[in-house]
Amino acid sequence: MPVAWQQLYADRAQGMRASDIREILKITAQPDVISLAGGLPAPELFPIDEYRRAFEWVLESDGAQALQYGPSEGYRPLRKLLAERLSRFGIGCSADDILVTNGSQQALDLIGKILLNPGDAVVVEKPTYLGALQAFNQYQATYAVVPMDEDGMRVDEVERLLSQQHARGQRIKFIYALPNFQNPTGRSMSLARRRRLVELASQSGIPIVEDDPYGELRFEGQHLPTLKSLDTDGLVIYLGTFSKILAPGFRLGWIVAGQEAMEALLHGKQPSDLHTGMAQQMATYEVARDGFVDTHVERIKAFYKERRDVMLQAIEEHFPPEAHYTRPGGGLFVWAELERHIDTRELLLDAIQDKVAFVPGQGFHPDRSGTNTMRLNFSNVPPDQLREGIRRLGHTIQRRMARSEPLDRSVSI
Amino acid sequence: MPVAWQQLYADRAQGMRASDIREILKITAQPDVISLAGGLPAPELFPIDEYRRAFEWVLESDGAQALQYGPSEGYRPLRKLLAERLSRFGIGCSADDILVTNGSQQALDLIGKILLNPGDAVVVEKPTYLGALQAFNQYQATYAVVPMDEDGMRVDEVERLLSQQHARGQRIKFIYALPNFQNPTGRSMSLARRRRLVELASQSGIPIVEDDPYGELRFEGQHLPTLKSLDTDGLVIYLGTFSKILAPGFRLGWIVAGQEAMEALLHGKQPSDLHTGMAQQMATYEVARDGFVDTHVERIKAFYKERRDVMLQAIEEHFPPEAHYTRPGGGLFVWAELERHIDTRELLLDAIQDKVAFVPGQGFHPDRSGTNTMRLNFSNVPPDQLREGIRRLGHTIQRRMARSEPLDRSVSI
Repeated sequence: MPVAWQQLYADRAQGMRASDIREILKITAQPDVISLAGGLPAPELFPIDEYRRAFEWVLESDGAQALQYGPSEGYRPLRKLLAERLSRFGIGCSADDILVTNGSQQALDLIGKILLNPGDAVVVEKPTYLGALQAFNQYQATYAVVPMDEDGMRVDEVERLLSQQHARGQRIKFIYALPNFQNPTGRSMSLARRRRLVELASQSGIPIVEDDPYGELRFEGQHLPTLKSLDTDGLVIYLGTFSKILAPGFRLGWIVAGQEAMEALLHGKQPSDLHTGMAQQMATYEVARDGFVDTHVERIKAFYKERRDVMLQAIEEHFPPEAHYTRPGGGLFVWAELERHIDTRELLLDAIQDKVAFVPGQGFHPDRSGTNTMRLNFSNVPPDQLREGIRRLGHTIQRRMARSEPLDRSVSI
Repeated sequence: MPVAWQQLYADRAQGMRASDIREILKITAQPDVISLAGGLPAPELFPIDEYRRAFEWVLESDGAQALQYGPSEGYRPLRKLLAERLSRFGIGCSADDILVTNGSQQALDLIGKILLNPGDAVVVEKPTYLGALQAFNQYQATYAVVPMDEDGMRVDEVERLLSQQHARGQRIKFIYALPNFQNPTGRSMSLARRRRLVELASQSGIPIVEDDPYGELRFEGQHLPTLKSLDTDGLVIYLGTFSKILAPGFRLGWIVAGQEAMEALLHGKQPSDLHTGMAQQMATYEVARDGFVDTHVERIKAFYKERRDVMLQAIEEHFPPEAHYTRPGGGLFVWAELERHIDTRELLLDAIQDKVAFVPGQGFHPDRSGTNTMRLNFSNVPPDQLREGIRRLGHTIQRRMARSEPLDRSVSI
């Protein structure tokens, strides 16, 4: 008798379908398509030589430790280095407050694992990071969605949601926020809203999960304090990653949390994979120490700023005037909103014909809205290709607009 | 208001407590304690030079790929190499049937994630691998326990459990088995039982998860076919790892599964951490190719065989005649059973006074039995220390026996 797998799967497997991201990464693998779809850093910036020397040093000086099982918490010198660096950004913490994870994605998984019963709600920005939705979907989360504007998450709406949760039959377990150059919109939360959000969390006893992969990649303006640095009560679980400031391929991220939450996270980490690989932690420590990250981040910022400028200028030139788009002060993404009746999933099929790809925005909306939105990545495409990609995409959009009747017009007939 | 974390945790967090293994690893960190507690490979055998050259080659020849995001399935040349190698052991598979994981521990997590609803049952050997229980506990598994004898899992008992599951109100989702040099007992399943177990799985449509970290580490006798190689219906999900044949520090394992189960596992892997690190996969491919693993495994076997012999001889000499123990033909562990009334958790406290450590066996028993059992590791301790460790432990046991009254005697009073 063959196994009837469909009848064996757990209920949670329902929410774990093929990922949009994954299918998109397959499309972008075609060499003649200019992909604005990924969220990949520019490989030109990878500190390859530094890692080569670091692995050599680690394996020559302490190979036995690098190849042996290690602690679930992570490699202590790396945790210490992170704590010192974060303290400079106003996040007062010690090595004991840091858990090393396999990228921020594992951090999101662990947070869902320890906090979410089926049906529990997470407050999320609309739109929000697709990978976070996928992580929380595994634990059958529901969502309380908060609209955004140019100042980020509408914190007044968070207040409303928190006060109404019981009337709505929801149990909100935490607030998930990306305050800096958010994926997918590139927007940042204003300082006033940051303060207010931490205040709301404190008043309600509902923790915040602050996901901050892009915070250091600010091209202009003043650094704004993280939610974690505004938190004096251990309300905020902070997620960081080396993916955007060194390289994503090693899968190295970290969680900063207070002692009680940290213990639960650690009890989630151990059965998940015992610990994060030692050699890659030790080599990353060697690369990151002595201030290398600081100088490297300056290089990344100059490089990405140029690409952002090229993308925005090309959008200005080639997109129809009806398109709205963000002008992010940092990060990796521009977010565009087309006329209501344009479905960007359909548009993507045309765009691929035109040899350009983007991410349709609907997947970032837990309520499946945002059908007329798209995410555009500028970090991983050289300037001339960026110009050409946006030119092609502008052409695709104009063509689609000429062909299709706006929905509201046909409704009015 | 501070966060009341205890009230926020998901129900599953109840089953995710501090791990015995983790606490034990802390004990063993004391340098003057001879630890027979870990499950660590001998660092003397680590192919450190090979990895040093491999990382150098990978970073010089293809650094950008090594540092960039990679596919969730794993690095294709490594998957291809694994498929070729496994085919030599009778497991006919291609690269498409293989998913690279962060060690077998992540494989166990993913299997629990896609298959287990709260209350679902897993058939397990008694005793069984503690890390598997911890992985499945996260998904609120229950257990249908099968006793073992010198021929491994009592497959007649499996038959009984499968036929009675509905009467017992259980829903069995899969059978978890370690047929080769099982952790913790060192026992192997006989060929007749392997055949019968696969037959039972086929008759009932219940899949088998075959965990095989030690299969290649056979010191004597004939290699026995894996359950996977006896399976023609895609009933068996097979787990392998580089941890015991190269090194555990990189966290590299793999799952072999048929197409349908593989798709579900992949949908579990992606939200868990996107993918396993690229550089470590690429370097491991470079180390493992061209037959290196085969010659290296021969070296490991000779090395561990000597240590096993030393341990068995020392046990013969220093343990009381009342103690029973296994004589494993491979792997990393000897399993000992003391007189009924000796609680090995209490004994461990005495043993640590005597500067020797082991793992009390109860944690390997999902029904919390096995209070008089212990796991002894011989792979990670040099021969003279092994002799001395067992001498000390024999002394601890004798002392405890002299001091304590057997329970059944006091009962008979």
